[in-house]
Parts: sequence; C-alpha cells; structure tokens
Amino acid sequence: MSDTALDAAPVILISHPMLSPMQAPLAAQGWRVARGWELAEPDRGEARAIVHAGEIPLTPEFLSSLPKLGLIANVSVGYDGVDVAWCRAHGIEVTHAKGLNAEDVADHAVGLLIAAWRNIAAGDQLVRGGGGWRDADRMRPQPSLKGRKVGIVGLGAIGEAVARRVEALGMSVAWWAPREKAAAWPRAATLLDLARDSDILVVAARAEASNRGLVSKEVIEAVGPHGLIVNVARGSLIDEDALIAALKDGRLGRAGLDVFAEEPTPPERWADVPNTVLTPHTAGGTTDSIPRMVAQAVENVRLFLGGEPVMSPAS
Amino acid sequence: MSDTALDAAPVILISHPMLSPMQAPLAAQGWRVARGWELAEPDRGEARAIVHAGEIPLTPEFLSSLPKLGLIANVSVGYDGVDVAWCRAHGIEVTHAKGLNAEDVADHAVGLLIAAWRNIAAGDQLVRGGGGWRDADRMRPQPSLKGRKVGIVGLGAIGEAVARRVEALGMSVAWWAPREKAAAWPRAATLLDLARDSDILVVAARAEASNRGLVSKEVIEAVGPHGLIVNVARGSLIDEDALIAALKDGRLGRAGLDVFAEEPTPPERWADVPNTVLTPHTAGGTTDSIPRMVAQAVENVRLFLGGEPVMSPAS
Repeated sequence: MSDTALDAAPVILISHPMLSPMQAPLAAQGWRVARGWELAEPDRGEARAIVHAGEIPLTPEFLSSLPKLGLIANVSVGYDGVDVAWCRAHGIEVTHAKGLNAEDVADHAVGLLIAAWRNIAAGDQLVRGGGGWRDADRMRPQPSLKGRKVGIVGLGAIGEAVARRVEALGMSVAWWAPREKAAAWPRAATLLDLARDSDILVVAARAEASNRGLVSKEVIEAVGPHGLIVNVARGSLIDEDALIAALKDGRLGRAGLDVFAEEPTPPERWADVPNTVLTPHTAGGTTDSIPRMVAQAVENVRLFLGGEPVMSPAS
Repeated sequence: MSDTALDAAPVILISHPMLSPMQAPLAAQGWRVARGWELAEPDRGEARAIVHAGEIPLTPEFLSSLPKLGLIANVSVGYDGVDVAWCRAHGIEVTHAKGLNAEDVADHAVGLLIAAWRNIAAGDQLVRGGGGWRDADRMRPQPSLKGRKVGIVGLGAIGEAVARRVEALGMSVAWWAPREKAAAWPRAATLLDLARDSDILVVAARAEASNRGLVSKEVIEAVGPHGLIVNVARGSLIDEDALIAALKDGRLGRAGLDVFAEEPTPPERWADVPNTVLTPHTAGGTTDSIPRMVAQAVENVRLFLGGEPVMSPAS
C-alpha cells in the first residue's frame, strides 16, 4: 500500500493494551490502527470505530473527544462499560459478541460449581502439601450434587447452557430475570425467592448500571450456610463486600467466582476467605471462541465502514 | 446388655483407622468391634467378619490368622486389595458397595475434567497471588470442550454416569473394556485405539491384579500433548511414573487425578509436574453416599451372621 493510500485509510482505535492482539487482524484489512491508551497517539482524533472490551468504562467525555466515531465494536459479550443510550443519542452504534462463547462460559460455570462444591481446588492444595492428605475441616464431605436445586440468575444463552448441563448432573433448575420469557424451567417470582429455594445460585445475567449489587446481602444470606454462589457474569452484580463477610462467618457456604468487583482483584482481599474457588475472568476465552469474537468485531468494522448493517447490535 | 451377652456377641474386625467411624454403627447392633490394626487386640482371633476399605491389601497370611472369618464387607466400591478367588476357596464371602456412589464419582470426574482442561485450579492459585492475574504460560486458552472426544476406560455404573454428563457438555463418547456389552456408545477395538481417538481419557475401570499399569506409556503418549487423562478409579491402573514423565516433557497435556499409586501420594512427587489437578481420593465420599455404604456393610454383616444371603457380592 502506498503512503497516500495509508493516509486515506480509516483509523480504528483499540481501547486497551489487552486488545493488542487485535492490531494485526485490523491492519490486515488495510486500516490504520491507533492505540487508545497512548495519550500522544496522533491518529486518535481520526478514529471511525473503537474495538473494545466491554467491561472497561468508555466515558462520554472520552467518546466526545472522537468527532468521527460511529461504532464501538465490543470483542466481548458484555458491554457494561458502555452507555448504549448515550451512544445511540450521539449516533454511535454498539455491537457485541452475543452468544459467541456461551457454551464455554457455561462449561466454566459448571467447573467452578463442581470444584467449589466438591473441594477440588482445596483438595489440590492439600495433596500438594498444604496441610495433610485429608484435612478434616477443609475437606468436609458434601451432599451429592444429584437432587440439589440450582437457581439461575439471567436466562440468556449462558444461563440456558448452564441449565442443560446441571440437569445432566441430576439437579433441578429454576431461574429469575426481570423479564418473563418462554423457558423449559420455572421462573421464580423474585430473586430473593429464587435464592431461598436454591442450594446453588449461578449468576449469568447481563450487567447494567441498574443492577449493580443485585445479589445483595439479603440474597446471599438466603442462599445460606450450606449454599454456593457461582458468578460467571460480572463482579458488579454481587455485593462483593457482603459476599466476603458472609463467607468468613459462615452465613454463606461457598463461592466460585470468575469475575470480581475490581479486576485484577487484590489477592489479599481473598486471603482469609474460606471455601472459594477463584479464576481470573477466563470463563469465555477458548481457542475456539476468541477467533470467532475477533472475526466478528473485524467484520462489524468492515460492515460499518461500507455503510452496511452491523451484526449483533447491543440492545 | 450384660457382660455375658457381650461375651457371646460376635466379633467384627475393622481393618484400618480410617474406618474408625464404623465402630459406633457396628456396636449399635450389639456386636463386639475389634480394631485390626492393633496387634495386641485380644478379640482379633474371634473375628467372624471384617469391615474393610477395599483398596487396602488384606494378605492371605493375615486372613489365615482369623480361623472364624466368613465375610469381608467392603464399605468401598473397589476391592482390589482383596484376593476374591483366594477368599472363595477358603469359604470367605466378599461384598462391596457396588453402584452406591457412582453418580458422586462421576460428578467428581467431570469436575476434575473441567478443572484440568480450563485451568481452574491453576487460575485459583494465580488469583491468590501465585504469579499474576493471568500468567500467559499457565493460563493458555484451551479449545472448547464442545466437540472434544472422550474415551471412557471401563463402562460400569461410573463410566456410564460420566458418559451421560460429558454428552451434556457437547462431547462425544467412546469406550473400551475387556468385555463387550450393550451400550449407547461405540466400543473401541483396543485401549490404544481408544486413546489415539480421544482428546480426553477417563479411567473408570475396576482395578484387578491383571490390569496393573493398563494405561501404559504407549497409551499415555497416544492421548498426547494436547490430551487429558482423568483417573477416578485406582492409581494402579496407570503407570504413574510414565504419566509424570510424560506430563513433565509435554508428551501428555494434562491430568486430573483422584487416585494414586501410593496414598497419600508424596507431595514432592508432584512439585514439578505441570497441568495437573490432584484430589485426595474424595470422588466417592458425600454425605449421601457414605451413610448408604456404611448401612449396606452393616446390613451385610447382619445377613451373614443370620445365615442369610448377602447383598452385592464381589464378582
């Protein structure tokens, strides 16, 4: 490509260093790639689209500094860092990776569920010399998973994939979400009812400004001393301080968490919190899902630049 | 009960300190309980039955020292420590907990499978401060579980329960066992064929003297650098030295193990072995299964002492 052609090429901004692997596939389309986290980035003001990880906040102030912006293409499923209504009012389209990793996230949720319930991570530490072959307190036998009641918070593609999996483990399923929908499983009247009626609560809802702390101290205590909470959605959906306090004094039995209020979560925050399995927001990332999500984001930029309708707009 | 009645009560031997919780339910039947690991135990020679954990060797020499012995009631499913043919030839019946914890063992197998494949135990250590939020080397993304091929070694109650569960995760199932049987899934011609054709090999076979080291170096290498071996059966079924060597130099990808060549397994044996999840032989022990297994062992002693046919004889 000649310098003149490159000068004329559209500028695509990537929003965070963790998206650096996007540079090559975007550049391969003949686009100029600008790194949004470099304040001195000269091309920034020219950006037509942002390729983004939706959990990271994009403020109206930042977006207002990009006069040519028309698209935020989230590589992620979630887009809680993006104010979609504000974007819509300012002529900016928002897309996301809807459903592209639902099966992977559900696998990970079931992995966290079994690992937390059956003491798999704790057992691994004991076998490796962290306190004896079968520490009686850390390896207390648990009830069978068969017959336990699972409550799913948010019955989208991930929630449904979790439901199918836990049924195969002999567990029963109920769910709650703010809106009714046709489903194979009963919907609880309220989240608190669901929590009271569940041995295991799996959080798989979309995070929004309106549902911060949805899983409150009251909901956590309703799951109770023998119960387990699994979160593969977003840390903001749980009152994490209340969760930690409840785990420490036994008002909640166990937790399996892939997402946190702050990421990376400070290790010292979890040092004295028993009966937890923690993973670093890896539920959705597989060698199958990542290329699909990358390819869709690139394709959405291409469609947008060509004036065609984008795929999977945020709703 | 008077001293005379107690003197006349049948003596039941428990074979290992880990079976100490059996003392109360046996004594509650009015039987005298002798502790087999105490050499000075005066009642030992009077034992009519042994309540046993089947993985622990009971030698013919030891059994020959018990002239009144007529029953070995295993609280466990496995009874690889008992020479059933020798017992039969010497008029000693052997029973076990056939099928009483199959669903629990299968749950744990699936937990080990997902935890090993999706880096859940490694991720837990990273989040807790063991090397950064997402250590690139220890948290390499993996392929989706959906579409992977699972080979099950031994299609008894546990193997079938594993098969149903992994199908719900979108994986395909094949199996191998020495004997053909009617099954919903295809049987491979040989174990080596099964290993070559599987991404994940789950060992769920009954351990016998004849199948020590069944999962050999050749089988381990056929599962390969991207493959995973899960073992919830017995450590003796795998050539553990070959397994460790293959994990260390990358000829095998991953392992999830609940059972070991020696138990407790020495922690230093696993210090430099990557991509492993290890649990201390807890797959079958839940607050639902343990009382069932205890109750059946007690009932078998009762049936035997009353001259009635026992339940679930070893075959």
